[in-house]
Amino acid sequence: MESHAKFRLSRVGITGVKKPVTVRRNGRAVTLNVTLDLFVDLPAHQRGSHLSRNAEAINELVEQAVHNPAESLEGLAARLGRDLLVRHPYAQVAEVEAGADYFLERTNASGSRSLEPLKLLARAEALRRDAGEPEVRKMVGVKVVGMSACPCAMETARDLLAKEHRDPAIHKLLEKIPTITHNQRNTTTLLVEVSEGHAIEADDLIALVESSLSAPIIGLLKRGDEGALVVAAHKNPKFVEDVVRDILQKLLERYGDLPDDAHITVRSESEESIHRHNAVAERETTMGELRVPYPGT
Amino acid sequence: MESHAKFRLSRVGITGVKKPVTVRRNGRAVTLNVTLDLFVDLPAHQRGSHLSRNAEAINELVEQAVHNPAESLEGLAARLGRDLLVRHPYAQVAEVEAGADYFLERTNASGSRSLEPLKLLARAEALRRDAGEPEVRKMVGVKVVGMSACPCAMETARDLLAKEHRDPAIHKLLEKIPTITHNQRNTTTLLVEVSEGHAIEADDLIALVESSLSAPIIGLLKRGDEGALVVAAHKNPKFVEDVVRDILQKLLERYGDLPDDAHITVRSESEESIHRHNAVAERETTMGELRVPYPGT
Amino acid sequence: MESHAKFRLSRVGITGVKKPVTVRRNGRAVTLNVTLDLFVDLPAHQRGSHLSRNAEAINELVEQAVHNPAESLEGLAARLGRDLLVRHPYAQVAEVEAGADYFLERTNASGSRSLEPLKLLARAEALRRDAGEPEVRKMVGVKVVGMSACPCAMETARDLLAKEHRDPAIHKLLEKIPTITHNQRNTTTLLVEVSEGHAIEADDLIALVESSLSAPIIGLLKRGDEGALVVAAHKNPKFVEDVVRDILQKLLERYGDLPDDAHITVRSESEESIHRHNAVAERETTMGELRVPYPGT
Amino acid sequence: MESHAKFRLSRVGITGVKKPVTVRRNGRAVTLNVTLDLFVDLPAHQRGSHLSRNAEAINELVEQAVHNPAESLEGLAARLGRDLLVRHPYAQVAEVEAGADYFLERTNASGSRSLEPLKLLARAEALRRDAGEPEVRKMVGVKVVGMSACPCAMETARDLLAKEHRDPAIHKLLEKIPTITHNQRNTTTLLVEVSEGHAIEADDLIALVESSLSAPIIGLLKRGDEGALVVAAHKNPKFVEDVVRDILQKLLERYGDLPDDAHITVRSESEESIHRHNAVAERETTMGELRVPYPGT
Repeated sequence: MESHAKFRLSRVGITGVKKPVTVRRNGRAVTLNVTLDLFVDLPAHQRGSHLSRNAEAINELVEQAVHNPAESLEGLAARLGRDLLVRHPYAQVAEVEAGADYFLERTNASGSRSLEPLKLLARAEALRRDAGEPEVRKMVGVKVVGMSACPCAMETARDLLAKEHRDPAIHKLLEKIPTITHNQRNTTTLLVEVSEGHAIEADDLIALVESSLSAPIIGLLKRGDEGALVVAAHKNPKFVEDVVRDILQKLLERYGDLPDDAHITVRSESEESIHRHNAVAERETTMGELRVPYPGT
Repeated sequence: MESHAKFRLSRVGITGVKKPVTVRRNGRAVTLNVTLDLFVDLPAHQRGSHLSRNAEAINELVEQAVHNPAESLEGLAARLGRDLLVRHPYAQVAEVEAGADYFLERTNASGSRSLEPLKLLARAEALRRDAGEPEVRKMVGVKVVGMSACPCAMETARDLLAKEHRDPAIHKLLEKIPTITHNQRNTTTLLVEVSEGHAIEADDLIALVESSLSAPIIGLLKRGDEGALVVAAHKNPKFVEDVVRDILQKLLERYGDLPDDAHITVRSESEESIHRHNAVAERETTMGELRVPYPGT
Repeated sequence: MESHAKFRLSRVGITGVKKPVTVRRNGRAVTLNVTLDLFVDLPAHQRGSHLSRNAEAINELVEQAVHNPAESLEGLAARLGRDLLVRHPYAQVAEVEAGADYFLERTNASGSRSLEPLKLLARAEALRRDAGEPEVRKMVGVKVVGMSACPCAMETARDLLAKEHRDPAIHKLLEKIPTITHNQRNTTTLLVEVSEGHAIEADDLIALVESSLSAPIIGLLKRGDEGALVVAAHKNPKFVEDVVRDILQKLLERYGDLPDDAHITVRSESEESIHRHNAVAERETTMGELRVPYPGT
Repeated sequence: MESHAKFRLSRVGITGVKKPVTVRRNGRAVTLNVTLDLFVDLPAHQRGSHLSRNAEAINELVEQAVHNPAESLEGLAARLGRDLLVRHPYAQVAEVEAGADYFLERTNASGSRSLEPLKLLARAEALRRDAGEPEVRKMVGVKVVGMSACPCAMETARDLLAKEHRDPAIHKLLEKIPTITHNQRNTTTLLVEVSEGHAIEADDLIALVESSLSAPIIGLLKRGDEGALVVAAHKNPKFVEDVVRDILQKLLERYGDLPDDAHITVRSESEESIHRHNAVAERETTMGELRVPYPGT
């Protein structure tokens, strides 16, 4: 039992811990149902990581947050990362991933309001340094469900309809109105690294992503609203590639003050209505890389 | 340990058993990766059901099927149901549910072929009788992913487009071409009870369901094919309610010889592209009920 | 488009709607993240159910609950069921299912406290009557994750260990201490119908289920706590059959005032550590059936 | 529509494509139900990746494999990677991930045989080079479900039992027999890079992983078999950390001819029976790193 092989391990930890954590959002204390994964590395000479310390770290943080809400989900992840390095003195790195359901009030075309469910995401990595405080890197993120409409099938459908109808008036009409295409639920994830001084509001990231889709989804839709949403999406057809690139462009414009080494991850996935498979586009990069003008980017 | 409460239990069994089973399909022996759930009831006076007998029953059936393929997935479920009543002499009822991935060759508009993944389903219920063989009821079923396009949003989008273009000629023209609407993946499940003499080919049920959707999905789509599929779906917009009812109508037409007490279950679910939630329609009924003319149905 | 088949549909509705709803729990207003499914039936003569009315019903309820919290999750489901019959005048039945994450504070052996995640469940069915208010049936429920240890493998392991060690002292010891066996996560679901006058506190149902498992799970476990939990579970080995029956027995003892027609559903599922499949036991019954003394039950 | 931002994309592709593919396994042609993800990168100047070419590539491969089975799942992934670079001339990298259900015959203690379900995994990455054939890296992998028993809770449980029975003789006796502890399903994933000349048989990787767990799981278990499996697991208690390290050690011993740059990924996850969360250990490394003697590793 004592003779197990001696190798360093990259990550040892616990996954899927659910806790209610009070976080400050837009000036209000909000309780989020957070799901957490926590890891530290393990040196070759130590047999087991003290996993119960991870659970203790979470429990203390939950208690603290009742009286002293975390400033954000990523702030909470960073607190936990620092705490793990204290509790696991043998570890060089601590990693924390957090996700939470979140509701945002939206108003639709006809003026009715609805609380829309979204996902907040956060990550933190704490690196022990020879002296002083550990280096902590943290990311704030969102997962947004919206609508994408395919620009390519729109063109081929228009060609087919034009061939079918010999009437020149129909040909003209087809140029004027948005043509039919396949459209579907799209799930887009954005994660942005924020340095200690900076703060990025998750609500702003949600708005940035929603404005990059063919159309955002709003839950309460009256008969007229549905038509308006369909028209809007078809006037703005987008590939998953377009969604990712437009998000990258908006990040450059709105968060120009982020440092060159700030990590960025964008992923857009469409549950294609004409396929059984999904379409996906991704970019993992840094603000610095994005700033290099095309074709370098 | 011996003092547990004495109540009859409705179902005791095992779920999620995966096995490769050889089944005869269209004259060929095909090996299906089947996932099985098996249950029997338990009388009040017996503490535990002998669950290992369920696993044994499956294992023997898998071995038999290598040399003597089951005639169908529902035939295999029925075999297992009968076998469970023999192995559990205290049980009055045995229930078996089976699901399997299945691939069907399809040819699309441009002539290219593709193996499309579908789900086969089967259920069997064996009831012990005072004398003689048990009564066995079995169902054959399919789960089909296709495309649905919403007729309601199509109308409101057409109204909006007509309003936007004040030209009255546009109104008329919009009637001539399929208008934009939301469309999405739809998953429809159909289960039909078959009596011992009868046989229903799962491929026919798949065709029946696919012809009741706005359009079937075919995996390999060249540029032109995609447009053709989009046009086809928009010329045939359907609510989930329409999908279920059209399936019921076709069942009446094609399986008119099924007895009045044959159970029928139909469920259609659309992953609405303009909503975060799904739309669902269901009917659980019998052939006899379906035969009663409207408004009785 | 108008020629779709005319059949009654059993259920038409929306599934997977997520909303934050304020509910009164133990005297405090608690915000639950609720996931809702809502259905009504549809007569043969009507083509489509007005699904947007379901979304409207939920939205209004969420707004009302901010100022006037629902008394319980099942009370909220019942409110929605009544409301659906008003909004869908053609419907005879409305069905609502609700689930929510919920956290309960627990103290473990060493005195440390932890917020444990659980699932609250609720169902309501509203039936239109010829005159007056609809009949509403509602169920309150919980889904609890705990630990089960197998009594059968414990016996066979004890026999094997006894054979292995010829020392009579070991034989004696094996009778005195809990023997090794397989143990695993068990998920048990309990739903109880409550009539209008009655109220059943979900926390009591959670306690009832947890006390029927081999041992409850508590998140924060110090080194000693883990051993204590393991010892407790092995002193109380249980089949899934035992878990279901002990819950039924406790329901009879604690909720003796429930009427004979109150529905009861219990399901216990163990993710068996020595199998790839799960073991399941279920009973669907009424309080009346449970009251009939053995062997009638 | 034409003005989308111009950035390079890391990955554009399709996910979740299911196909039956014939692969040679141990000298026999076996049909696997494979699920595939396929990606290429996309340069900044091109708006969309031609995703239908990915589906075409898969379809042609499926047809070819009927007559000319792939030598392995990773061989198939490599073929697809090469093919994608041909079909997407603008791409520099192609990535393919594949997973498949697979059944292996096992014999248990009492001599009965059972087909056990496992998962085969494969990855390939094709990199375009300035001249000649692309560089292709491929990985073969397996996902194995087995049993883990906790060594730490075993010790604390033994201490508790010893305290409970004040008899000093009991202390000594407790050392002689395996003590109770929590045990559970463990899922362990292993991926090993293989170069063109080499071949690693997935069955060998499965055996390597199963021998590193507390005990493997065999489906058909007679009453005695269950006890034997429980005893075996408790004589071999293991942390997830131990599982990963023992696999690394065995890789060094059995695949000593793998080159220093061969990538290795090991991940072990236990669905802890005394916790609601899982315990995880991971190592991502190369054969070269593993060869450096401790403490460097």
